Amino acid sequence: MGNIFGHLFRITTFGESHGGGVGVVIDGCPPLLEITPAEIQQELDRRRPGQSKITTPRKEADSCEILSGVFEGKTLGTSITILVKNQDTRPQDYDEMAVKYRPSHADATYDAKYGIRNWQGGGRSSARETIGRVAAGAIAKKILKQIAKTEIIGYVKRIKDLEGVVDPNTVTMEQVESNIVRCPDLECADRMIELIEEVRRQGDSIGGVVECVARNIPPGLGEPVFDKLEADLAKGVMSLPASKGFEIGSGFAGTLLTGSEHNDEFYTDAEGHIRTVTNRSGGIQGGISNGENIIIRVAFKPTATIRKEQRTVTREGEATTLAAKGRHDPCVLPRAVPMVEAMVALVLCDHLLRQQGQCGTLKFEVAHGK
Amino acid sequence: MGNIFGHLFRITTFGESHGGGVGVVIDGCPPLLEITPAEIQQELDRRRPGQSKITTPRKEADSCEILSGVFEGKTLGTSITILVKNQDTRPQDYDEMAVKYRPSHADATYDAKYGIRNWQGGGRSSARETIGRVAAGAIAKKILKQIAKTEIIGYVKRIKDLEGVVDPNTVTMEQVESNIVRCPDLECADRMIELIEEVRRQGDSIGGVVECVARNIPPGLGEPVFDKLEADLAKGVMSLPASKGFEIGSGFAGTLLTGSEHNDEFYTDAEGHIRTVTNRSGGIQGGISNGENIIIRVAFKPTATIRKEQRTVTREGEATTLAAKGRHDPCVLPRAVPMVEAMVALVLCDHLLRQQGQCGTLKFEVAHGK
Amino acid sequence: MGNIFGHLFRITTFGESHGGGVGVVIDGCPPLLEITPAEIQQELDRRRPGQSKITTPRKEADSCEILSGVFEGKTLGTSITILVKNQDTRPQDYDEMAVKYRPSHADATYDAKYGIRNWQGGGRSSARETIGRVAAGAIAKKILKQIAKTEIIGYVKRIKDLEGVVDPNTVTMEQVESNIVRCPDLECADRMIELIEEVRRQGDSIGGVVECVARNIPPGLGEPVFDKLEADLAKGVMSLPASKGFEIGSGFAGTLLTGSEHNDEFYTDAEGHIRTVTNRSGGIQGGISNGENIIIRVAFKPTATIRKEQRTVTREGEATTLAAKGRHDPCVLPRAVPMVEAMVALVLCDHLLRQQGQCGTLKFEVAHGK
Amino acid sequence: MGNIFGHLFRITTFGESHGGGVGVVIDGCPPLLEITPAEIQQELDRRRPGQSKITTPRKEADSCEILSGVFEGKTLGTSITILVKNQDTRPQDYDEMAVKYRPSHADATYDAKYGIRNWQGGGRSSARETIGRVAAGAIAKKILKQIAKTEIIGYVKRIKDLEGVVDPNTVTMEQVESNIVRCPDLECADRMIELIEEVRRQGDSIGGVVECVARNIPPGLGEPVFDKLEADLAKGVMSLPASKGFEIGSGFAGTLLTGSEHNDEFYTDAEGHIRTVTNRSGGIQGGISNGENIIIRVAFKPTATIRKEQRTVTREGEATTLAAKGRHDPCVLPRAVPMVEAMVALVLCDHLLRQQGQCGTLKFEVAHGK
Repeated sequence: MGNIFGHLFRITTFGESHGGGVGVVIDGCPPLLEITPAEIQQELDRRRPGQSKITTPRKEADSCEILSGVFEGKTLGTSITILVKNQDTRPQDYDEMAVKYRPSHADATYDAKYGIRNWQGGGRSSARETIGRVAAGAIAKKILKQIAKTEIIGYVKRIKDLEGVVDPNTVTMEQVESNIVRCPDLECADRMIELIEEVRRQGDSIGGVVECVARNIPPGLGEPVFDKLEADLAKGVMSLPASKGFEIGSGFAGTLLTGSEHNDEFYTDAEGHIRTVTNRSGGIQGGISNGENIIIRVAFKPTATIRKEQRTVTREGEATTLAAKGRHDPCVLPRAVPMVEAMVALVLCDHLLRQQGQCGTLKFEVAHGK
Repeated sequence: MGNIFGHLFRITTFGESHGGGVGVVIDGCPPLLEITPAEIQQELDRRRPGQSKITTPRKEADSCEILSGVFEGKTLGTSITILVKNQDTRPQDYDEMAVKYRPSHADATYDAKYGIRNWQGGGRSSARETIGRVAAGAIAKKILKQIAKTEIIGYVKRIKDLEGVVDPNTVTMEQVESNIVRCPDLECADRMIELIEEVRRQGDSIGGVVECVARNIPPGLGEPVFDKLEADLAKGVMSLPASKGFEIGSGFAGTLLTGSEHNDEFYTDAEGHIRTVTNRSGGIQGGISNGENIIIRVAFKPTATIRKEQRTVTREGEATTLAAKGRHDPCVLPRAVPMVEAMVALVLCDHLLRQQGQCGTLKFEVAHGK
Repeated sequence: MGNIFGHLFRITTFGESHGGGVGVVIDGCPPLLEITPAEIQQELDRRRPGQSKITTPRKEADSCEILSGVFEGKTLGTSITILVKNQDTRPQDYDEMAVKYRPSHADATYDAKYGIRNWQGGGRSSARETIGRVAAGAIAKKILKQIAKTEIIGYVKRIKDLEGVVDPNTVTMEQVESNIVRCPDLECADRMIELIEEVRRQGDSIGGVVECVARNIPPGLGEPVFDKLEADLAKGVMSLPASKGFEIGSGFAGTLLTGSEHNDEFYTDAEGHIRTVTNRSGGIQGGISNGENIIIRVAFKPTATIRKEQRTVTREGEATTLAAKGRHDPCVLPRAVPMVEAMVALVLCDHLLRQQGQCGTLKFEVAHGK
Repeated sequence: MGNIFGHLFRITTFGESHGGGVGVVIDGCPPLLEITPAEIQQELDRRRPGQSKITTPRKEADSCEILSGVFEGKTLGTSITILVKNQDTRPQDYDEMAVKYRPSHADATYDAKYGIRNWQGGGRSSARETIGRVAAGAIAKKILKQIAKTEIIGYVKRIKDLEGVVDPNTVTMEQVESNIVRCPDLECADRMIELIEEVRRQGDSIGGVVECVARNIPPGLGEPVFDKLEADLAKGVMSLPASKGFEIGSGFAGTLLTGSEHNDEFYTDAEGHIRTVTNRSGGIQGGISNGENIIIRVAFKPTATIRKEQRTVTREGEATTLAAKGRHDPCVLPRAVPMVEAMVALVLCDHLLRQQGQCGTLKFEVAHGK
């Protein structure tokens, strides 16, 4: 269970690290949307291993193929299937992991749950699963852009204790993509890259924080009670590998303010739109978007698989040590940026269609008694 | 949409602050569980308004009535309906809010979404909705306790900048309930209570952090990919009113460590169970419980509705000010504790049944070729 | 499980025959729809026991109360809760059924499934559960009528071997409601009523066929693959108590034709709409509505609970006999008519919102490159 | 939407007739089940085009490839992906259908719904979509067989007006597979084959009825209210292409009996099991299996695509005629048999896991106060 995400814009990802390939089935995409494999590939290339000197050297072109759902360059409305074949697999790198559990990885828990595990590349727990998310996210982004000019921009806010200075209200995709660590604070980006390289040399790993902003969000997205917009965003990003924390707007820091300091006072802008003076709510109030920028942060732990030797046990429980082979990222943050963007896009697109389904045209037709 | 939570143990909450009442329908509860209204009432009393001098003075007994699903003291397996009637409603307190938007509240976004809003007590956005969650959570807790001796204990970890010292591995429910702010660090609890009373006198509000531990969790709960256990926990608590952030295990602080510092090394304990030396994972690895204590933290912002005057606009967008009437909590944290526990219980109980459905008896029968 | 129906227009029914009451939570209703308790009551009165000499004499006013979701006569967009309290319960009528299984009833299977059963009135298996469906159906009908002028009219087509002559394309609700058996063929209706009265005197029961037509259906409702419109209609009506068969359009009889006889040829009508000459498809092709009238038939078996003595066993498996007490319908068909209409309305309304969510405004906006 | 089926054993089918291929993602399969591609292929071969002189001559080996979820011959518990590549596609056969609507086919309704359509082979409306169902059904069958020795056997009961005499309680798979039309009444089978060949020569098509029995069904499968076992079976088979009607047990004919004639009286058999003397219920009472054989019937209309010339319109609504090219079955029944079996297996397997999830071990543990 658990391979399906979304309610109206609903995706099913599939595949494993080692095997025929990975991909996604997208159910509920509006018809007549123009989409090319190149637009999807562009996002996959940002997620791709081997994209720079600070990522895993595994060589995967991650070329996507659209199996169904697009005809003469347009979506059909029926389900879309996207497949990415695996190429550079090295099962032998995982021989030792067949018997030894990697600390803080999914090896032991998969065995506990299922009594069996595909130790070649981690099977379904591999981060290659996120290829399907990023491919579907590319389509979700396109829909949001077409309907509402929505922009979703993620970036590395912090690596370990190196924190960039970034204004989420003005940051551009060009700034993010201007460097391999995806931090728009260029001076800080250089220091982050240095740190990651140093950590890699030590056979160790580090983590950090990705921030993501969504701009031009129609007010009214999100549902009362359980499917609040921030709840679905939290679920989306907390289902990404290695994520340990989530914040919306003021987040944990906001708990240090009083209500009178924290509340976002309302005013009416020049165009007659009701706006807030500040945005500690992070664009969501009562679970529903208010039209201000949605701003979230996600904490990613240091990569679990490291070359440094660690104490662990075998499947049978005998004490041993493990110094992981295989090709792993010393820091997942640069590649996590497109993943976070994809999850944000999937959640927003789903809620856009849900809002249209329940309140769209109906709201006004019914209101005017037609 | 959005009033339903869970997959196998699935609840639908219903009702509004002002109207016939609130409650919950629970679908998928195992049969033959002994449950009394008193056990449910006990949890509702921890959530109830007017329970102490630091909560809202609204007087609601919140007496629950089991409409269906329990027969001669035992669950029937068919759906359970629990109803709590509203009593102490004062719609007149909300007259001003019919036309003015409360800053950082759901008033404006409900209007944006639906074009209409029940301004009496906030309608469906009222925290009274959580009565249904807490009632259902009481049953989920009982199931978890019966099956696995699971204990779920929440407590106030921090109020504004006052942080208690609490060991999640040993804290008891008695310690939590020993004081009205629900902080097991008694010295700190006294200062928290003082601070809340002072803030209330100023017509202001404050927030903080609830921490929650779940002990005696069977390994194997949670699903790969989207329905990771931490993802469903994040969604559950981020759907609570006023929540702004979520952490599991090391959370945001864990991003300051290297992988070799952060990883939880394995060992085998005296009873032959595979355990981890540390628990920075917070009891979950790869989205699946590993048998260690599950530890989460939730940030709650200061209550949005305050007596202090704030700038805002009317429904028509005209600038005005609002000093809220009505009876509100100066700090939601003490009453949020049972809500967080309930959401944790609901998620764990759902995943317990899911695990039993997919892997329970079948796992072994199939394995042994029967 | 299983108490929830629909995807965007989603209902949860609750309650039991004997206990606090029964009702429904409706999730996803469009906002600003004008609805009165009287409109809902009108449908409930058609389903109500004791409505005529040929139904069960149980006296239930079945007065509905709207607990939430409607404000100043309009839907809020948030969930709607409707409660009907039970009044004329006689648990003592069921004493014998506490130990003896009624043949062809749910007594034995509930025990087999859950190991426990509420024998008072059948608990959740009681047909009183359908009150929630009919109440929600009244709202679904109103939405369909407002948006598309859709009319949904069910009627008794056959009682045992007495079959009425009815034209689904022109039948009116007035004709249906002109007699207590709800068969628009008045001459046949008289004979049906006589037959039911005779069967009741014998302590026996009979069944028959309900036909239902939905007129003014927008083309494009329904989904490819699993959620075909006829598949969801089939599920909806086959979940009604006592239903044993389902047909759409030509149904079983259509299998006696060749393709060239059966196919509905296309033509363009005076207004330029693409229409079909015949309607053996029953308004649905490839799982999607084509704008022609949707016509279905549902077979209902004779009521299982009868006064005639039958052989059965006790819970412990000992042979015994049972001549049922309690108040039961000699024929469920007249009261099944509003239930079938409700299920058809719920399915169509759900698919209307789904279609609007995926293809509504988007289809054209995207098509025109906006 | 609508490409997902099941709740705990949940499948997503994907792909189109012309394009990269078709297949299925299976979510929730128990781990450690031994399964080989050959076992899946065996079922696909029964569904395959070109399998005999009375099916479409399209040549497709329909060779399946397991992309993920099976490791060293055993299921992993994580999702299973099965892919079948398309081979013998002839898009040119469909040139005429790009502009003309086939009567009683999905062409016109897809255009009405989406404003666009893949006219090559019908896109997602192609019966090739059922490959995914049959592949997943093969795994569901294996699970049911392992756990409960369940057998699911479908067969052709009637072709047009030729009806076979078959005892569902004793029919064997060998009898079904002994002839190309899959009717176990061999004398009747010969006449059916003759009739199909004659109809094909005329460029026409015919339909009929598939009957399916499931034997060795554990009592207790199915849910009260909406997810009754017969409701989910009805949805499953009514989502198959060309199906027009569904019956369980006595079906429409049962409406001609009185309750005292129709009811299945109980007795206790030699092993102490509570059984029914007759089985007009078709193995399900109150929506829940009673342990007797489940027997259903499905009506399939004559194939819509025929070589005979028919009147129709173009996309623009102009009158024209169409004599279909392409390769089509003169009668879908022989190939529909494995499809019906697959849908029955999917529904039963899903409900088996659901029953285990809610009531399995828990029922007894809780009952005994452990």
